[in-house]
Amino acid sequence: MASRNPKKLEELHRILVTVVPAVEVLGLDDAPAYDEPAETEPTFEGNALIKARAGLAATGLPCLADDSGLCVDALNAMPGVLSARWAGRAKDDAANNRLLLEQLKDVPDERRGAEFRCAVAFCTPDGQEDVVFGEMRGRIIRTVRGTGGFGYDAVFVPDGETRTSAEMPAAEKDAISHRGRSLRAVAPIVAAALAPLGSTHG
Amino acid sequence: MASRNPKKLEELHRILVTVVPAVEVLGLDDAPAYDEPAETEPTFEGNALIKARAGLAATGLPCLADDSGLCVDALNAMPGVLSARWAGRAKDDAANNRLLLEQLKDVPDERRGAEFRCAVAFCTPDGQEDVVFGEMRGRIIRTVRGTGGFGYDAVFVPDGETRTSAEMPAAEKDAISHRGRSLRAVAPIVAAALAPLGSTHG
Repeated sequence: MASRNPKKLEELHRILVTVVPAVEVLGLDDAPAYDEPAETEPTFEGNALIKARAGLAATGLPCLADDSGLCVDALNAMPGVLSARWAGRAKDDAANNRLLLEQLKDVPDERRGAEFRCAVAFCTPDGQEDVVFGEMRGRIIRTVRGTGGFGYDAVFVPDGETRTSAEMPAAEKDAISHRGRSLRAVAPIVAAALAPLGSTHG
Repeated sequence: MASRNPKKLEELHRILVTVVPAVEVLGLDDAPAYDEPAETEPTFEGNALIKARAGLAATGLPCLADDSGLCVDALNAMPGVLSARWAGRAKDDAANNRLLLEQLKDVPDERRGAEFRCAVAFCTPDGQEDVVFGEMRGRIIRTVRGTGGFGYDAVFVPDGETRTSAEMPAAEKDAISHRGRSLRAVAPIVAAALAPLGSTHG
């Protein structure tokens, strides 16, 4: 998978292994030739494809990549593709959460709806390209709560929940999360693509 | 006018005086009874009305208020109504500009379009309420340039210009600006409402 985020790699393995028991998930730290592409596309789908194609190019192996983010109603679906760098510092979750809560300070409860969206792209050496999507609807609360997950999990309460997604055990979050949904959707596609490789893999 | 911003009061007077020569513009510092309302509406129109109504209530005088902001294409028309507090610190222009430029760092030139939008509300003691609009289309550059204006003027180049709106003389900016357009649109409405008051005012 075209990611260096150990939590994402773990999450992918956790989900994929239920469909493809012998699967092995490699991250970018296993792919020294990977040339980090700029994520310049205005859509999750576009950025996921950029990363999956770069991962395939660097390794010659089938490659998955996701691009995901938080789309807040009161911000016209932003931070969106800019979720990781919303506060201007790449991947500073604490700064991003703080900025988001400040921006929404005067936004009343009935307008604090939001959703996580995820696109997962899968590219294979024989030119197959697939993109699947997943989402998780909920709302933005007013303080940070919980230490699990990453990104905006600590300020987001999924619909039907009272806990933030950072307060939910991983398996419970996977069952409803945007990334869980999209990884489960892509799993059979991955399984089909890996089948011809036989049991020598994994 | 329901504003404490001396630059806005000056700009309003500069424009109104061309239509209503004897007009006198009072700001909120002249209205100690004004109770600062929260700008909680999701639209410029809604917030302008909140402020104009509060100004009328505090003074018993006809009151104008504007709400305006920068709508950036690549941010789905945000910062919008949150323009003044985009970086979380109320009315810190430098912090807001810095954050915006960082958020747009990877956005290519062809997707850096933006527009300033302004709504001006006018409320009178006899219950008349009007709202007019103005806009100025342009693009977001990559560094801060110019010391005139305020808000996001230093990162915005209007269509047909090479200067930022912070590099343009006030009169040239007024001629094309969102606030200039909406204040010129409201001026005849103000003139008509003030006419019955006669020459004892101003």
